[in-house]
Amino acid sequence: MAASSPVSKTIYLGPFAHCVTLAELEICEKGVIGVDEQGVIRFVEKEVEIEDLRAKFEGWEDANVVEARNGFFFPGFIDTHTHAPQHPNTGLFGKTTLLDWLDTYTFPLESSFSSIDKASRIYTNFVSRTLSHGTTTCAYFATRHVEATNLLADICLARGQRALVGRVCMDRLSPDYYRDESVERAVRDSQACIDYVRSIDAAGSIVRPIITPRFAPSCTAPCLAGLGKLAQETDAFIQTHVSENTSECELVKELFPDSASYTHVYEEAALLTPKTILAHAIHLSPEERKLIKERGSKISHCPASNTALTSGCCPVRELLNEGLTIGLGTDVSGGFSPSILEEVRHAIWTSRFVAMGTPTASTPTLNNAAKLSTAEALYLATRGGAAVVGLEDQVGGFEVGKQFDAQMIQLGSVPEEGDREGAFGEEGAGGPVDLFGFESAEEKVEKWVYSGDDRNCVAVWVRGRLVHKTARYKA
Amino acid sequence: MAASSPVSKTIYLGPFAHCVTLAELEICEKGVIGVDEQGVIRFVEKEVEIEDLRAKFEGWEDANVVEARNGFFFPGFIDTHTHAPQHPNTGLFGKTTLLDWLDTYTFPLESSFSSIDKASRIYTNFVSRTLSHGTTTCAYFATRHVEATNLLADICLARGQRALVGRVCMDRLSPDYYRDESVERAVRDSQACIDYVRSIDAAGSIVRPIITPRFAPSCTAPCLAGLGKLAQETDAFIQTHVSENTSECELVKELFPDSASYTHVYEEAALLTPKTILAHAIHLSPEERKLIKERGSKISHCPASNTALTSGCCPVRELLNEGLTIGLGTDVSGGFSPSILEEVRHAIWTSRFVAMGTPTASTPTLNNAAKLSTAEALYLATRGGAAVVGLEDQVGGFEVGKQFDAQMIQLGSVPEEGDREGAFGEEGAGGPVDLFGFESAEEKVEKWVYSGDDRNCVAVWVRGRLVHKTARYKA
Repeated sequence: MAASSPVSKTIYLGPFAHCVTLAELEICEKGVIGVDEQGVIRFVEKEVEIEDLRAKFEGWEDANVVEARNGFFFPGFIDTHTHAPQHPNTGLFGKTTLLDWLDTYTFPLESSFSSIDKASRIYTNFVSRTLSHGTTTCAYFATRHVEATNLLADICLARGQRALVGRVCMDRLSPDYYRDESVERAVRDSQACIDYVRSIDAAGSIVRPIITPRFAPSCTAPCLAGLGKLAQETDAFIQTHVSENTSECELVKELFPDSASYTHVYEEAALLTPKTILAHAIHLSPEERKLIKERGSKISHCPASNTALTSGCCPVRELLNEGLTIGLGTDVSGGFSPSILEEVRHAIWTSRFVAMGTPTASTPTLNNAAKLSTAEALYLATRGGAAVVGLEDQVGGFEVGKQFDAQMIQLGSVPEEGDREGAFGEEGAGGPVDLFGFESAEEKVEKWVYSGDDRNCVAVWVRGRLVHKTARYKA
Repeated sequence: MAASSPVSKTIYLGPFAHCVTLAELEICEKGVIGVDEQGVIRFVEKEVEIEDLRAKFEGWEDANVVEARNGFFFPGFIDTHTHAPQHPNTGLFGKTTLLDWLDTYTFPLESSFSSIDKASRIYTNFVSRTLSHGTTTCAYFATRHVEATNLLADICLARGQRALVGRVCMDRLSPDYYRDESVERAVRDSQACIDYVRSIDAAGSIVRPIITPRFAPSCTAPCLAGLGKLAQETDAFIQTHVSENTSECELVKELFPDSASYTHVYEEAALLTPKTILAHAIHLSPEERKLIKERGSKISHCPASNTALTSGCCPVRELLNEGLTIGLGTDVSGGFSPSILEEVRHAIWTSRFVAMGTPTASTPTLNNAAKLSTAEALYLATRGGAAVVGLEDQVGGFEVGKQFDAQMIQLGSVPEEGDREGAFGEEGAGGPVDLFGFESAEEKVEKWVYSGDDRNCVAVWVRGRLVHKTARYKA
């Protein structure tokens, strides 16, 4: 079935939660969401008794009904920055930091994607993984190989996962065996990928191309300018890294001595647009943040990666206060998990470390304003991310007219006798969250956020199409 | 079967890993560990071909053979600090910090353990949970109820999990409905629990009692002194909290104006012994650390809790350099997970935040010396923890004469076609770690540490007795 083919008219019944604003997480315990054959939400009711269901929605008598039991519907997660080819290195980083990590782990693996068989195995596996964690939209860095990059787009389209798929460009400061030999090659191969992705999904309803200079240190100024020109010509999205690590920032200063800042390097290449996603953005100056905001470019916050590689703590609260648009990114394999739920937790932890200030002083002053709440972190994972990838009008929450990109969360109930086997089966398939029966709707969401994992994500839909399910899912 | 009854003589075959020193993680790819009927390791071989097995070990021809496939044996984890009754609150903490968290979440729940049915359900569930995460030894805070505390010891003994089980004492600054009405009551009830635990396991081979003043703010000086005296009379272990949160530290100064420090409050009550476990130890002065070292008391580092409650970053590297003995604690439900593997990761993240120093400065100097390595964090989780609970001669590593407390780790292999369903089944029962076939033995351990969970822990042994297994375990 094609990812854009019609689906059955379906009523999603039961509790749902979504972020209404940055501060407000709305939880409806008696929800009903009606989704039409195009995957578009036609009604959202918040206080419906089940017995009134059929009577209430005329014309929907024959619709499928999918019910969330012992859980709730939640918008699909949006991963605004990850590297699909690096998935085999997930969890491998040792004590490296960005620049030696690239040489040790990343370049050797990425260069091997000249093998299409290898690319097929890894990309198929990674798309399955991200879907199983409830990721309905993903901004992917691929490699510099056109064929493998196009294959990633094919896989996303076939599996029905929304994706931005980018062929990575770099014409210097990467090893001889893995480098664009010229600016022309970088631009031409990027163009080839854009053309291909648009040929398989002309409307861009599932997969879209994205121009992907790796980052300023590995692209010459002519290469960046060529890609900026290509972005103007093709009206494509752009993704790259900015200000992740202090050594990297120093390197950019050396390589671009005439640029006022790291961000200005991109500005000067016409790469700072409203369709640009900048990953990390940890060590930006106030002037750089102001420029990014003026250009309408977006930020992908990748806290797990930033901690693993000791890149720094992005002061997300300040960036939000300044009005920047921010989503979350797993940044595999700098990040060690393909799960945006894990990233939600790490966004919260990083904000707490910022709140704790100088962490080893004997009397730190706690800056509570820096803390992200559960609701705020979930906002970044859904509605924030939607705005980063240009889908703010289409996904990220449950409203009439939006498309139904969602996950069904199911939690485990502890039986009276308390024994885990009874509740979960020997595999622990019921997942890591224990409900004892006293929990409010809000507390169920909190338990999921702080101790849930992919086992709790029993079904995933994109545009109303079921794209992942586990054996626990009963339609 | 009683937890101390004989087991079948067994040969554990296949890769194993364990920490030899703080810095050294030893990995043997062709390991053989022979365990006798008492659960004691009789031989450890590191380079054995399977075909030589039977010939090599005379007298073991009839032994069971348990083989680790696509994984490895690892010592059981030791949780040196957790609160079993708080498990239903796992993941619930919001933006509270220590003192308001106690009032909001903890005291109301703990006080309900006057119901033995409730205690049975929660304790049974929690012991199952901790075992499923590979925790073979656990230092438990219970509640102030004698009957429920004794039940926790019964459950640990029946399930075969080594435990220190403590009846919590507090005679002030806790709500009227949950407080010891007198010093005599605190001491008498503690004595009753000590007597009971020793009556069900006289040798203390599985369960042992532990004297448990909650922490200085909730115990008067006479109460602390009474418990110190009880510890001397009974030669029991002691556990409490120290220097977790700066407001708590200020409160201790107010409540004990004549004591030189928080640590001195315990010193003056004779509670600082070689059998004392001090949880958190974040904001200690150099003098306090020196005193703790002189007394031979031990530290439980609980980084997940410390981050969740924004208590601070314990400078573990400094404490290790000073020669203190340190293990890890999940501190449920200040901590949000019953998994010591999760705690291993958080110990590493916390050390990285310490390394990053003032996290929001534009050019932080990276203090690499503060970073814990994977090996070091695993050491704290096993051998370090063993020393904290007084079992350093019995468990924590695979050596002849030690008891076999272990977990079998199994990882998932990605098939050539890459599809997750093929490899894992719909439940994702194969767990979150993807092996692609290129990984060295060291990299398998790293992948487990950074992306593994309870699904990878397919079997758990204490003293050679199988105390937990999943359907993936094939003996």
